[in-house]
This record gives sequence, C-alpha cells and structure tokens, in this order.
Amino acid sequence: MPLNIVLFEPEIPNNTGNIGRLSLATNSHLHLVKPFGFELSDKRVKRAGLDYWQHISLTIYESIDDFYAKNIGENFIYFSSHGSKTHWDIDFKDNMFLIFGKESSGLSKEITEINNSKLYKIPLYSDHIRSLNLSNAVGIVVYEGLRQLTK
Amino acid sequence: MPLNIVLFEPEIPNNTGNIGRLSLATNSHLHLVKPFGFELSDKRVKRAGLDYWQHISLTIYESIDDFYAKNIGENFIYFSSHGSKTHWDIDFKDNMFLIFGKESSGLSKEITEINNSKLYKIPLYSDHIRSLNLSNAVGIVVYEGLRQLTK
Repeated sequence: MPLNIVLFEPEIPNNTGNIGRLSLATNSHLHLVKPFGFELSDKRVKRAGLDYWQHISLTIYESIDDFYAKNIGENFIYFSSHGSKTHWDIDFKDNMFLIFGKESSGLSKEITEINNSKLYKIPLYSDHIRSLNLSNAVGIVVYEGLRQLTK
Repeated sequence: MPLNIVLFEPEIPNNTGNIGRLSLATNSHLHLVKPFGFELSDKRVKRAGLDYWQHISLTIYESIDDFYAKNIGENFIYFSSHGSKTHWDIDFKDNMFLIFGKESSGLSKEITEINNSKLYKIPLYSDHIRSLNLSNAVGIVVYEGLRQLTK
C-alpha cells in the first residue's frame, strides 16, 4: 500500500463513494473517521463506488482521537485551502497518510494550527472558487504522490 | 487560458457540474459537446458547480463535427482507458485541448483509432477498476498539466 487516504468526518455519500473507487484504483488504504454525514450502507456511496466497494482496503474509526491512537508514529500530511505550500511541494513517501477534512468546513482550526508545518493546499486560479470538490482534491493529490513514487 | 477541457457527450449532471468548478478553479476553458444526458439547467449541474456557474468560460457545441469545425488546427489530446501512454508522459503546452468521452463508454472506437498516437490513460493499479469517475479523471489530468506549465 503506497499511500493512505484519510477522511475526517465526511458528509457527502457520493464523495466517499468516489474516493473509495479512487482508493481501490490507486491501491491506497482508505481510513474513514466518524461521525459521517450518511450511513455507509447508503446506496449513493455504493453507486459512486460501483460494484467494488467490498474490495476496498478500509479502516473505520469512531472518532479523530481513535484515529490518532491507532496510527501513532505515522507520517501525516494535511490538506486545507489555508495551506501556504502546494501539494506539488510535498516530498511523497511510501505509506504517507494524506488527511482531508469535511466538505463543508475542512479541517478544524485546532488541527490546522497544530499541524501548520505539514499543511498543504491545491492551488486555485480563480477568486470565485474557495475549494475543489473533496473527491477531486483527493484524486489530484494521490496521483501527484503516485507520479513521484512510481517514476 | 492555459488549458481547454472538452467533454464529448457528457451524461451525468453532477460530473459536468464538478468539471465546471474545476474549469473555473484552474482558469481553463470548458467545451461541452452535445448531446448531453441532462439539461444544463438541471439543478444537479449547478449544485455541483455551486454558485459560480455563470463565471465559467464555456462554449457549447451542437455535435462532435461542430466542435472540430470550430477548432481547426488546435492541439488535441485524448483520454481513454485504452491509451498505451500515461498522462504523465504528455508534454503539456499552453492552450492544449484535453478531450474526454462520455461516462458510460468513453470515446468512440472511431475517434480512438484515428487519434491513437495522441491517446493517453490515467494508470490504474487494481484489476477491479476499469476507469475513474470522469470528474476525477479531468482533475488529475488538468493539475498535471498545470504542474508542468507553472513550474
């Protein structure tokens, strides 16, 4: 498993479904941290994730604290539109944990402040846009990681 | 406008909405080629594209022939899971046209055969997956283009 995709408290079932599909396509491990804004059995998760949801390498956590307790010592990288460096500046390593916040508000201020040195953004080129769709953001970051790790 | 995103006959309104958001975020021009599988006024297009649909730089074509007739001499690149080279192999140029097929079946065999030397894929790392979500695919390709063009 070269990369780990982590969603803190995802809200929109179609995004989690698409990110499941991305996880499988990229041989990444998917970590989903509760509370979710939907039930994992929601047909919109499986429709977006198509028929292969059962093949995804998946861990579910009861809370953000539970996630940290079970992944001590791992290499965490955080994504936020408030990051100062871009995802192209990351020196990707095997087994990195790529952490994304919820769709409506992103990662909490507490998390972004503590982890400021490991906070990255995807550059945007329009004043009309504050952020990308979550599943688009994950795809862009993971494929940049794979580009670096497989070249 | 560094890049052009072209959707031939898109079927799913949420994807086109998300790709509109991506187009604006990346300062790309969006070309939508009919027939569509939805009405552009569909609320699912605008919901995914949020409030900024009116800011998108957009051209609509009545058919694939109409698209080609109006873009003679442009630099076309095609995406298909049947491509032999990957999107990382593309030498991106300003104003390139990045052409994506419909969600259900991709680009027609006629188009992929004629343009075989300009056909690229996004690499997949699982036998369970045949393709990525269309809006994910567009985001991954456009940000690789921007990486090359802005570095």
